[in-house]
Amino acid sequence: MAERLVVIGGDAAGMAAASQARRLKGPGELAITAFERGHFTSYSACGIPYWVGGKVDGPAALIARTPEEHRARTIDLRMRTEVTELDLERGRVRARALDDGGRESWTDFDKLVLATGARPLRPPLPGIEARGVHGVQTLDDGRALIDTLTASPGRRAVVIGAGYIGVEMAEALVHRDYAVTVLDRGEQPMSTLDPDMGARVHAAMCGLGIETVRRAVVTAVLTDDEGRARAVATEDAEYPADVVVLGMGVRPETALAEAAGLPLGESGGLLTDLSMRVRGRENVWAGGDCVEVLDLVAGHTRHLPLGTHANKHGQVIGANVAGGYATFPGVVGTAVSKVCDLEIARTGLLEHQARAVGLEFVTVTIESTHHAGYYPKARPMHVKMLAERRTGRLLGVQIVGREGAGKRVDIAAVALTAGMTVEQMIMLDLGYAPPFSPVWDPVLVAARKATAAVRAAGV
Amino acid sequence: MAERLVVIGGDAAGMAAASQARRLKGPGELAITAFERGHFTSYSACGIPYWVGGKVDGPAALIARTPEEHRARTIDLRMRTEVTELDLERGRVRARALDDGGRESWTDFDKLVLATGARPLRPPLPGIEARGVHGVQTLDDGRALIDTLTASPGRRAVVIGAGYIGVEMAEALVHRDYAVTVLDRGEQPMSTLDPDMGARVHAAMCGLGIETVRRAVVTAVLTDDEGRARAVATEDAEYPADVVVLGMGVRPETALAEAAGLPLGESGGLLTDLSMRVRGRENVWAGGDCVEVLDLVAGHTRHLPLGTHANKHGQVIGANVAGGYATFPGVVGTAVSKVCDLEIARTGLLEHQARAVGLEFVTVTIESTHHAGYYPKARPMHVKMLAERRTGRLLGVQIVGREGAGKRVDIAAVALTAGMTVEQMIMLDLGYAPPFSPVWDPVLVAARKATAAVRAAGV
Repeated sequence: MAERLVVIGGDAAGMAAASQARRLKGPGELAITAFERGHFTSYSACGIPYWVGGKVDGPAALIARTPEEHRARTIDLRMRTEVTELDLERGRVRARALDDGGRESWTDFDKLVLATGARPLRPPLPGIEARGVHGVQTLDDGRALIDTLTASPGRRAVVIGAGYIGVEMAEALVHRDYAVTVLDRGEQPMSTLDPDMGARVHAAMCGLGIETVRRAVVTAVLTDDEGRARAVATEDAEYPADVVVLGMGVRPETALAEAAGLPLGESGGLLTDLSMRVRGRENVWAGGDCVEVLDLVAGHTRHLPLGTHANKHGQVIGANVAGGYATFPGVVGTAVSKVCDLEIARTGLLEHQARAVGLEFVTVTIESTHHAGYYPKARPMHVKMLAERRTGRLLGVQIVGREGAGKRVDIAAVALTAGMTVEQMIMLDLGYAPPFSPVWDPVLVAARKATAAVRAAGV
Repeated sequence: MAERLVVIGGDAAGMAAASQARRLKGPGELAITAFERGHFTSYSACGIPYWVGGKVDGPAALIARTPEEHRARTIDLRMRTEVTELDLERGRVRARALDDGGRESWTDFDKLVLATGARPLRPPLPGIEARGVHGVQTLDDGRALIDTLTASPGRRAVVIGAGYIGVEMAEALVHRDYAVTVLDRGEQPMSTLDPDMGARVHAAMCGLGIETVRRAVVTAVLTDDEGRARAVATEDAEYPADVVVLGMGVRPETALAEAAGLPLGESGGLLTDLSMRVRGRENVWAGGDCVEVLDLVAGHTRHLPLGTHANKHGQVIGANVAGGYATFPGVVGTAVSKVCDLEIARTGLLEHQARAVGLEFVTVTIESTHHAGYYPKARPMHVKMLAERRTGRLLGVQIVGREGAGKRVDIAAVALTAGMTVEQMIMLDLGYAPPFSPVWDPVLVAARKATAAVRAAGV
């Protein structure tokens, strides 16, 4: 009899695992059943802001592989079916068909993959569950938001939270002719950057006409007689809103795993080993937005939900459940995003993250241009670099600039992975030609300055 | 008395060395004399094609620091002065003032820096020294070429050689409304790439209206009665030309060093140690286009003249002559260039280079897009990857694509420096967001395919 694999969650991690396992083992050896609670599989949630903003025709364009395509590859995919219980002892899961009167049934497994994703943070405030308040974590979320936008006669939006999703959504709403207010608790928007770099993003948001309220503590979503959101209240003011978007981040969707006694980290994310096997379990794997990943620079696990990690997790899990061998070594914390023509990137640790794990460091910030200053359209590019005191080891890089700035962060991402010092980085043989870079790439200029700062700091 | 430093050559390596030394030691400790045979100092020769093509206002924009600026920093700079002899035994150089009736004089030194650069290859063919035949190695060369272009009534240009300088010059001449023919000995233009990748560049050149003649063996430059170039002859045909540009590469300008008995490599480039000190000499340093550099992937030194290396050499030399400490570890062979909107990049070894040093390897080529396929204006991007047989160590990457493709090569440049395997590269935490990259960066897609190829090749 074929071994039985059950996958919970039909997006990147789950379906990449299923697909990779199927590539390695045919249906005679491995029977694969996958459960997805929503209407879509294998999609790019990262594309939702561009769908909402009208840059991309959604949802079809955002789907890498449809349910039909998965089924054609002999994956028994149960759409609109929510798993409600894990019975690890007997090796079975209970699932409920959402469109079929809630009919429940048990499915047995030999091996289990948890890819249950994450859900937008909803602080327990009055009105937070009102109609017109939207997260943007799944394609179903995206569709619901677009339905609200289409139906709404008003054109005022409030985005709560100015992390990268909040900022991207704010821009998308501007493109839909909304007057947008972003309410954020921090000193500066773009909490994925240190405040000094976030200030540059703030300037770009103002340029788009986005009102950004900093140090804002949201106290309630106010509703109208029909229970629809009509405004967001903070400790200081009230902001009228025809639609409210939640951009306060997400938390791992691990209620099922918790109920089954599986190990969770501080964030609530599942803990796995390097093969993405749930710690202490022989036949349970987990990946994607529901797990914590090892941060190789910070030296601990944390919740860092990104599609690029989820896809890698899926590939690793698929190889391992099919009897192959692969590992996910961890992350260095790379992220890029865009506001208007401003490119925003970071990798490694921010200042507060470095301090939190006991690292002492120097920081430098340089201004350069993304290509030779004399070549047409040279635009400024700012690079901030953190290096460990004494050792000079690279700890993090943040970049804010225009075209050609964002992916520069990959240089630092690879250098972090390799454990390079900033002094080693000075001599990196990076691509140079006037349309691509100044003769000293801005990352190298930062490395030179950081090297000097490490020396100046002494022992 | 102050120590006496003499620098020969006023471009990147020489003046970076002088400037860095001056930063570390004042004129009371170190007297610096620098000789430059041309009219310019510290300029970007890489910018010449953009000056010729009208994208950049030359020569001023291409000059990082003028002679006056150097003199203001207490560097005794002798412009239009050619060093004609090195007397290493007595520690002095003989120099001739080119604009002063050829007056010669000796200058004593305690420490010497050779930064004599390179000169365009001119095979010993009839007519190769004719008027109207131009190299493009120095700003003086660039000015002479522009004078010829301005004076010429005709609009036909022949470029000999289709390396990156030849290709960039061909495009520049198209922008000046020249009908351009490129004659090249190879199978495909862009000899810095393998022929299969060079073919993609060939297509782009055709799109610009550039006629590219491959497997062309040039036999002579034909001249008119006044000794001006009028055509270029190959074994098969004659190509009329109002101007001829040499793009066959350069060779190190080391006649002085050779006459003084300094050690040269196979290319004629000076051999140095890791501190850029000329091998076997206590008080002589060399850097820039006149030296061979250690190719960390090939495991031997070779001539790889690039402004980015020259600047680094200068910084290292400046630190060392001033009693500091710095080393240049070597290069991995990174280069980027542009034809029209096509970005062309390589790092590490080509197939023939890998074979020449005894490496066995697998190659893969993938097609992807530079950003998410569904995001507007996604353009194709091709990545070729070489990995060592058995070990899977990365040996080289070549990229041809549009906007955002070229600098991707830096990922591979850092991975090469760190000695990563292609399997390690699969899990690199690179920046991902739809406007920047597909969820699997094209470099990672290539690494996946290369990993599979290494496994398939077995032991």
